[in-house]
Amino acid sequence: MAYPEQFQGFATNDPKDWAHPKLTSYQPKNFGNRDVDIEVECCGICASELFALQNGWSHEPMTCLSSKYGPKTQVVGHEVVGKVVAVGPEVTLCKIGDRVGLGAQASACMQCSRCTSQNEQYCQNSVSTYCSKYPDGYVSQGGYASHVRAHEQFCFPIPPEIPSELVAPLQCGGLTVYSPIKRNIAGKTNPKVAVIGIGGLGHMAIMIARALGAEVYAVSRGYSKKDDAMKMGAHKFVATSEENWQQSLFDQFDLILNCASSTTSLDLNNLLPCLKVNCNFISVGLPHVDEDFRVKPFTFFRNGCNIGSSKLGSRTEAIELMDLAVKHNFRPWVETIQVSEAGVSEGLTRLNDGDVRYRFTLTGFHEFFNTGKQ
Amino acid sequence: MAYPEQFQGFATNDPKDWAHPKLTSYQPKNFGNRDVDIEVECCGICASELFALQNGWSHEPMTCLSSKYGPKTQVVGHEVVGKVVAVGPEVTLCKIGDRVGLGAQASACMQCSRCTSQNEQYCQNSVSTYCSKYPDGYVSQGGYASHVRAHEQFCFPIPPEIPSELVAPLQCGGLTVYSPIKRNIAGKTNPKVAVIGIGGLGHMAIMIARALGAEVYAVSRGYSKKDDAMKMGAHKFVATSEENWQQSLFDQFDLILNCASSTTSLDLNNLLPCLKVNCNFISVGLPHVDEDFRVKPFTFFRNGCNIGSSKLGSRTEAIELMDLAVKHNFRPWVETIQVSEAGVSEGLTRLNDGDVRYRFTLTGFHEFFNTGKQ
Ligand SMILES: NC(=O)c1ccc[n+]([C@@H]2O[C@H](COP(=O)([O-])OP(=O)(O)OC[C@H]3O[C@@H](n4cnc5c(N)ncnc54)[C@H](OP(=O)(O)O)[C@@H]3O)[C@@H](O)[C@H]2O)c1
Ligand SMILES: NC(=O)c1ccc[n+]([C@@H]2O[C@H](COP(=O)([O-])OP(=O)(O)OC[C@H]3O[C@@H](n4cnc5c(N)ncnc54)[C@H](OP(=O)(O)O)[C@@H]3O)[C@@H](O)[C@H]2O)c1
Ligand SMILES: [Zn+2]
Ligand SMILES: [Zn+2]
Ligand SMILES: [Zn+2]
Ligand SMILES: [Zn+2]
Repeated sequence: MAYPEQFQGFATNDPKDWAHPKLTSYQPKNFGNRDVDIEVECCGICASELFALQNGWSHEPMTCLSSKYGPKTQVVGHEVVGKVVAVGPEVTLCKIGDRVGLGAQASACMQCSRCTSQNEQYCQNSVSTYCSKYPDGYVSQGGYASHVRAHEQFCFPIPPEIPSELVAPLQCGGLTVYSPIKRNIAGKTNPKVAVIGIGGLGHMAIMIARALGAEVYAVSRGYSKKDDAMKMGAHKFVATSEENWQQSLFDQFDLILNCASSTTSLDLNNLLPCLKVNCNFISVGLPHVDEDFRVKPFTFFRNGCNIGSSKLGSRTEAIELMDLAVKHNFRPWVETIQVSEAGVSEGLTRLNDGDVRYRFTLTGFHEFFNTGKQ
Repeated sequence: MAYPEQFQGFATNDPKDWAHPKLTSYQPKNFGNRDVDIEVECCGICASELFALQNGWSHEPMTCLSSKYGPKTQVVGHEVVGKVVAVGPEVTLCKIGDRVGLGAQASACMQCSRCTSQNEQYCQNSVSTYCSKYPDGYVSQGGYASHVRAHEQFCFPIPPEIPSELVAPLQCGGLTVYSPIKRNIAGKTNPKVAVIGIGGLGHMAIMIARALGAEVYAVSRGYSKKDDAMKMGAHKFVATSEENWQQSLFDQFDLILNCASSTTSLDLNNLLPCLKVNCNFISVGLPHVDEDFRVKPFTFFRNGCNIGSSKLGSRTEAIELMDLAVKHNFRPWVETIQVSEAGVSEGLTRLNDGDVRYRFTLTGFHEFFNTGKQ
């Protein structure tokens, strides 16, 4: 069977075989009144796919294995760009034929205080684009697929100025860094932002923080990304391979945004004094379940700083971000990979090895899935 | 020798004998151009004295033992009220005869970006009122004493409406909770604040948060302080002895202010979801050096919240706080104890045992030290 009864996608359900998703057919979730079907054109590869497929954020079995809906399929992918091909009867935010983007969130209650105050990413009933249970037990399936189904709130209109393969990474990675940068530097004069970990999220954070008017320090483990970071718009570059690299940065930053996928090399006791008084260290990086920070009230005492994290962004912020990219003419640095079992495997493997400058977008979905005809 | 060559105070330098400070004479620090001598009238007892005397915040020997200035004396006390009896040649903020308060900070550089932006409590060269080294190596001595010497910036004018023994606890404890409450609820409509640990700091936090317009939840380990907390102005009372006490508090607070002197019973994974989106858990409580929190970015993920701590407050905030107390007519709940070796010992021991409702102020300094004659 094909669409609309069945979607096709690249699926794994064995963390040990995370690098080899196989082409699979599966039933989509029930079509809700505000749901939208997107025929996928391309999809970015976010490091979160690795944690999901490797089950690296959990000591429990993969969510898809505990679903009461068979087959035990897990299709990842949450930087989707594609065309609207079906809309539920109550959809008002997009229409058939629109080019839209879908990030890492596919549903929310849309009624709670968070949903009604542009914080729907923090809805208690939020459903992620993949690996997440709907109220009926269905486990969501992502965008390495012919189609993906999501609530209209999370299908963002895309400005015509940006090609699909370049706008895809803004849907998750870009939005995830835009939200805390904006929220933390709003209203500050000459804000200064440090971005740690110059990967997919980090490289977009440099461009976004700069466009929002900040002085930007790019912080990487070594010097190999220095020239690139300066081209992206960083004002200064810091390599943490230098001993005592933090020392000259005392009392500098309005925000330290950690985009690294591992926090083992971050020593908060030395890093936090680099913040100005009452400012925040925000980790959007979500490391392996076994990594943690040990902190005490004294950890924060020297400047009354805070640590926290941040999840994705709101629809409003997604739209603001794409406008900003048009207005300030910045684009993610993307290497495209043709979608296929081999292509997905290559992308995941190279991302896992850190061999990416700076984001992969899987392309060619129409050819592969024989879609794009309408 | 007596004042001005020598001060007298109650000193300990053996953490094992923390409960028995002995009357001692010692040389004050060099008199700086902006220094002020306060003839002490009374002094509150803050739980920080316990940590200092018991050396509970450190794995190193007590600071006074490493001083190059003998004798190895440690006099604590940093909720001082008294009269100005000497001023350095450049003092402009007070004059001889003024009644002033001195909290837990005695000096700062007054030139750095923090000192010049009303964040002098976070000055890198801050000197605490006791147990802290001046640049020349002298270890500061506190207010369980005939006199105390401090930089004029930290000698706060006291409104005539508040008696000395009631205004003393505002100098450290009150200021310490005022600053983060004010900074975290500024500009919010109908803010809601949870205060954890209803001791000296916590009971003032209830009154202050209420006066600043917040809805206040008092959180205590059991029910014994419920009636008092409601009289202080709490709107709701929560006992953490109830299982799942956090459950009904999901998404409620603009600020959780931890005033407990131990954090062992706080489970951040259950507590933090009680915060609204992007709000802060601030611990002014500074527990024993061996207590810590283990956190991961996921700890903060459900609502993008943060954790941190806060140190004292600025001079501006101290003055604001005392104005607020006059305007809203609230006063710390104080039990006075006559100063003497026995009185100091009683106060420290009962505070250590949690046998205080809710702050001790040591009084009768004039009689004991034969001062107050001028
Ligand atoms: N909070 C959210 O809502 C959200 C959304 C999307 C993604 N994420 C998370 O964000 C993180 C980054 O994702 P990404 O797609 O940008 O990944 P990425 O492209 O792999 O970039 C991660 C960067 O982290 C640094 N890094 C890698 N391994 C490291 C190690 N062992 N120790 C220290 N640093 C290391 C590297 O930067 P340098 O070479 O410059 O050191 C690398 O470029 C992941 O944890 C992902 O799950 C979170
Ligand atoms: N950040 C700063 O600048 C600053 C300034 C001053 C003081 N402090 C610190 O603030 C803390 C409180 O000082 P305080 O003078 O208010 O002390 P306090 O009068 O002894 O009050 C502490 C309260 O903590 C709770 N508590 C006591 N033992 C506990 C335990 N084992 N587990 C959990 N809770 C416990 C109790 O409240 P319940 O009975 O209601 O549970 C108690 O009333 C101390 O750590 C002190 O060093 C910090
Ligand atoms: Zn992602
Ligand atoms: Zn909701
Ligand atoms: Zn204190
Ligand atoms: Zn200073």
